[in-house]
Amino acid sequence: MIIVMVPHAAEDSIERVVKEIERMGAQAHLSRGQFRTIIGAVGEEGNIDQNHLATLDGVEKVVPIMKPYKLASREFHEEDSVIEIGGGSVPKVKVGGPHAMCIAGPCAVENREMLFKIARHVRDGGATVLRGGAFKPRTSPYSFQGHGETALKWMRECGDELGMPICTEVMDTRQVELIERYTDSFQIGARNMQNFDLLREVGKTRKPVLLKRGLAATVKDWLLSAEYILSQGNRGVILCERGIKTFEDSIRYTLDVTSIPVARQWSHLPMIVDPSHAAGKRDYVAALALAGMAAGAHGIIVEVHYCPSEAQCDGPQALLPETFKEMMGQLRQVAAIYKREFTDAGVLV
Amino acid sequence: MIIVMVPHAAEDSIERVVKEIERMGAQAHLSRGQFRTIIGAVGEEGNIDQNHLATLDGVEKVVPIMKPYKLASREFHEEDSVIEIGGGSVPKVKVGGPHAMCIAGPCAVENREMLFKIARHVRDGGATVLRGGAFKPRTSPYSFQGHGETALKWMRECGDELGMPICTEVMDTRQVELIERYTDSFQIGARNMQNFDLLREVGKTRKPVLLKRGLAATVKDWLLSAEYILSQGNRGVILCERGIKTFEDSIRYTLDVTSIPVARQWSHLPMIVDPSHAAGKRDYVAALALAGMAAGAHGIIVEVHYCPSEAQCDGPQALLPETFKEMMGQLRQVAAIYKREFTDAGVLV
Amino acid sequence: MIIVMVPHAAEDSIERVVKEIERMGAQAHLSRGQFRTIIGAVGEEGNIDQNHLATLDGVEKVVPIMKPYKLASREFHEEDSVIEIGGGSVPKVKVGGPHAMCIAGPCAVENREMLFKIARHVRDGGATVLRGGAFKPRTSPYSFQGHGETALKWMRECGDELGMPICTEVMDTRQVELIERYTDSFQIGARNMQNFDLLREVGKTRKPVLLKRGLAATVKDWLLSAEYILSQGNRGVILCERGIKTFEDSIRYTLDVTSIPVARQWSHLPMIVDPSHAAGKRDYVAALALAGMAAGAHGIIVEVHYCPSEAQCDGPQALLPETFKEMMGQLRQVAAIYKREFTDAGVLV
Amino acid sequence: MIIVMVPHAAEDSIERVVKEIERMGAQAHLSRGQFRTIIGAVGEEGNIDQNHLATLDGVEKVVPIMKPYKLASREFHEEDSVIEIGGGSVPKVKVGGPHAMCIAGPCAVENREMLFKIARHVRDGGATVLRGGAFKPRTSPYSFQGHGETALKWMRECGDELGMPICTEVMDTRQVELIERYTDSFQIGARNMQNFDLLREVGKTRKPVLLKRGLAATVKDWLLSAEYILSQGNRGVILCERGIKTFEDSIRYTLDVTSIPVARQWSHLPMIVDPSHAAGKRDYVAALALAGMAAGAHGIIVEVHYCPSEAQCDGPQALLPETFKEMMGQLRQVAAIYKREFTDAGVLV
Repeated sequence: MIIVMVPHAAEDSIERVVKEIERMGAQAHLSRGQFRTIIGAVGEEGNIDQNHLATLDGVEKVVPIMKPYKLASREFHEEDSVIEIGGGSVPKVKVGGPHAMCIAGPCAVENREMLFKIARHVRDGGATVLRGGAFKPRTSPYSFQGHGETALKWMRECGDELGMPICTEVMDTRQVELIERYTDSFQIGARNMQNFDLLREVGKTRKPVLLKRGLAATVKDWLLSAEYILSQGNRGVILCERGIKTFEDSIRYTLDVTSIPVARQWSHLPMIVDPSHAAGKRDYVAALALAGMAAGAHGIIVEVHYCPSEAQCDGPQALLPETFKEMMGQLRQVAAIYKREFTDAGVLV
Repeated sequence: MIIVMVPHAAEDSIERVVKEIERMGAQAHLSRGQFRTIIGAVGEEGNIDQNHLATLDGVEKVVPIMKPYKLASREFHEEDSVIEIGGGSVPKVKVGGPHAMCIAGPCAVENREMLFKIARHVRDGGATVLRGGAFKPRTSPYSFQGHGETALKWMRECGDELGMPICTEVMDTRQVELIERYTDSFQIGARNMQNFDLLREVGKTRKPVLLKRGLAATVKDWLLSAEYILSQGNRGVILCERGIKTFEDSIRYTLDVTSIPVARQWSHLPMIVDPSHAAGKRDYVAALALAGMAAGAHGIIVEVHYCPSEAQCDGPQALLPETFKEMMGQLRQVAAIYKREFTDAGVLV
Repeated sequence: MIIVMVPHAAEDSIERVVKEIERMGAQAHLSRGQFRTIIGAVGEEGNIDQNHLATLDGVEKVVPIMKPYKLASREFHEEDSVIEIGGGSVPKVKVGGPHAMCIAGPCAVENREMLFKIARHVRDGGATVLRGGAFKPRTSPYSFQGHGETALKWMRECGDELGMPICTEVMDTRQVELIERYTDSFQIGARNMQNFDLLREVGKTRKPVLLKRGLAATVKDWLLSAEYILSQGNRGVILCERGIKTFEDSIRYTLDVTSIPVARQWSHLPMIVDPSHAAGKRDYVAALALAGMAAGAHGIIVEVHYCPSEAQCDGPQALLPETFKEMMGQLRQVAAIYKREFTDAGVLV
Repeated sequence: MIIVMVPHAAEDSIERVVKEIERMGAQAHLSRGQFRTIIGAVGEEGNIDQNHLATLDGVEKVVPIMKPYKLASREFHEEDSVIEIGGGSVPKVKVGGPHAMCIAGPCAVENREMLFKIARHVRDGGATVLRGGAFKPRTSPYSFQGHGETALKWMRECGDELGMPICTEVMDTRQVELIERYTDSFQIGARNMQNFDLLREVGKTRKPVLLKRGLAATVKDWLLSAEYILSQGNRGVILCERGIKTFEDSIRYTLDVTSIPVARQWSHLPMIVDPSHAAGKRDYVAALALAGMAAGAHGIIVEVHYCPSEAQCDGPQALLPETFKEMMGQLRQVAAIYKREFTDAGVLV
């Protein structure tokens, strides 16, 4: 940690800072310039209270050097992590390192029939994990909020029948236990990325968690949220970039593919992209999925519907089954550049 | 609602849209231009499914005209709402319309003694509601997370002894009942602004809710979150602007005072600002508080500490008691421009 | 254009709006709802003064329907434009439609020798157009500002010798004539995207213009800037996405690949990406270049240096020649997905 | 400057960095931690080439400590600067320190009569400097672009007759000489904030320059642009905050009042706000003007029109003369909090 003093800081301010650093069990190294003194605090950065140092007299700013997360960092775990979703009644699907993964399905589970129909389409197109919302986060209290446990049951049946592990969103700490009984993996939505109690609760389970990036979260914030889950003992965190909020208003969100090489360098966790929610419009979904994979992602999560005009939510962004299948072919070509392979869904059943 | 068709849309696409609008119980008005047809859907906008229309063939975009919230809108409730915090063991404090309010206290409740000491300072300086965190949302799992129920008890005792209603943050649906037993008002943090289950739970109580704006939330998103609370029957929503995420990195957040006249025009709800979290640094707090009031806010929520270098969280942004008092004097001058008055704390005891 | 009146607008306000629309040579279509009246103005949108209508009594807002640019729009020119750079002393290089293009070279032209050395490297790696700055826009007045005309001469000699058309930045209307004498194409930097006089001046030449997107420009703003150039008779506009300013601070700019499918849908102009300036760091350049192409771009402009630690500007983001060559191989694979081909540099000499 | 090495950097990488620092005439101070070595480079920061150090092997990042601008910084000039506009045929108006200033007038100068009429209104309302556009930057090439030199002549006549110095925008280096002959001060628009040649040209004149902040410029970028002007010998730079680009779409721009206390702490230059362009809508102008002054600004620049529905540009944001006058009264109250006074226009004639 580096402590930058104000220009011409008083000698006793400097001494106080040095003393405080030593009190915290670290060593202080002084660099005295013509105008300013810079103090390096060397030791276990976790033991040095940045906040406290920042409030001392004569301190202009404190610059931390080490990353504030540990379990999520590549310094802690050098190799790419490979996470497995599924097992038991369904095959295991791998993601991370050389393993690419496609999660697909409807936005919300509207009824049993449509779910099975879409699931068959996406499995046929190359998806190996089935998505579908039972509890839906909606910006308006007057919008459709999901079918809850009934939808979870359909998801479980459908996954078992088709041999696909399932993934569904959890929004409330009180739902964790219920959803855990049915699902193979949790999804935490962008708006809950810093719902710290929820992160802790899913961290206590042993099912993988797809952690979407918050709309205003930096890569650092995102990895700190991953750290919440990891620190509870659950090592199955999959990062998911789904678009950030910017000034651009021609599209719903800006899919930040730039974050992919950064997060991949800082962390060993697998990373996928959600092109559907960024695009908000079917026409743009394939371009964004391809861009995400080309930037280094390990896969995608995408919404598909055979009849978007009947969808109860987010119809305009759902891909048609045939477009989905075509896109999967293109994604395989991009994955090959990174020597990654999508598991063949055919093997699973 | 206005449906804009693609250029030279096929006649049967236009007919389909018209039919669907009529099926929803609304009337369709066509305007045929040289290139495009525009269709106005006139009727109860709540009954018209924008999503559905957007997925129909030949539709380029759908432009809603009415606001998507009702109870929060000024069209629904023309006069400024006045909300009361407190009652029972403590006096009632009003906010909204001509009533300005100052909520102040420590960031986190660290121990009983410091709480009482700070509370006396802020009451003396002109605050009428006491803030203090019992459960703290922290970006890192390794930071201090608050003293929980013990802190709530201290808050209650302190509020009762000094005659100040209290306000404390709720982060998890499971805490609502517990916190409700102690507090006079809830605070929902920026990162939980779209934690919809939590909004619904506090909406079921009858205690006022301070709803902070999300870091990436538009004014419309914010009012929709207010609508979640209001729609459960709790009419005590106080909006709180606390800074949004922008590219500017010289300060923690950009306090968006521009949103104040907008939100005041669209909604009848009282609105206050939190200059402490935007500034992140004591030096800038007073300027931001003044700016917020000058833009039309009904008050502030601010962090104060008599010894910031001992604070367990956010010490650098805490005001010293004397600066707080001086700032309150300046805020009264600004409030006078809007013909608003801060209740005199002296009257309360 | 659609005029949305305030709720319960007075009848004579509505009449005034109708009259004004008719005075502008358009027709007014009324849709009267329970609360609001919506007026559609149908006719040549260019003749309808949106600004004027917005100031009339009782008007809440005016929503334009048609795009504000013409020559840049796909409605005006349905097929992808193909632009040629070069001719005369150097071969012509095509970009747009099925033609992918790579522009590469040093950030700034530092001396004759390094320029020739880098140019040979990039030609060898697959670039067909040579970049190099003679006049450099620098945020600090104390940074190296470029070698001016001397650098232009070296660029011309080098392009001619290696058979590569050249591209260099113009920053000031007074430089247009001078630079035009030497270069095959102009580059307008992000910070000059709305330097309207400069746009007009390069619009008067007949050499292609690489128009970088401004740091805070929407796709609409960008196409309007292209329209400035096109409206002067220069049809050779190539759009270049180079990253926008967002809250993310882990990387210099956010390469907005999301804008690529949008701009491609709205406009017929070719579009390339600049991964170097977004990344700011060599490690991330290839991932961003690949992402841009995968999102649908027609090529890249990239900085290369054989010894980045000697570069006078932007050394940390320059690719090494061998990495550049490897990346070009990967880009060819991605281009194939879109059935695009990079011209073979070998053919040119 | 601080050089952070990668974890476990090789000994000879560290030595190379130390040698390079010494070669630049500075001293290197090493702090060796368990994982990382941090190197402080102490000396004239201007002589240390950050860029070069960042490209050396084993360097993770370079953190500059000193501000990159000098003449604009408060370290260089501790007291608030006071700038004078006018002199000669018109009185001098001061801004900075205890002097508040109001610049007002029409957006564009449309004709002689309207200019004089508006000028009388704003002088009567309390403005002491007259604004008016002769050359207009417009996002669309098809919009009204201003009356050029004719408008400048009217401005000069009007200023002389009413005893008000004038301020008008310069967009192109080729216009500087012409505009200088007529005006008392230049305005540089947001979109030209990093038009470095233009900054240098106005820097060579001796007339004050109102430098608007770019839509995506940090406070640091802004002060670096001021430095361009100052470094040419023109010390009359007045900063003008006019709104930044954010995700919020309910208003044109977000007036970043948060930047005011920051820029005031970092720089001695006077700072005013432009509420008109941020608001884009008359209803919000007064609230933003008040907020800017309350955050510490030295004044405002605002658009006024007696008949906004006839304005050729930006009519919806123009204040009516009576609203302007009322707002000025409120601004005087806010200025008093900072012990600032608006010069009385009455004294001027």
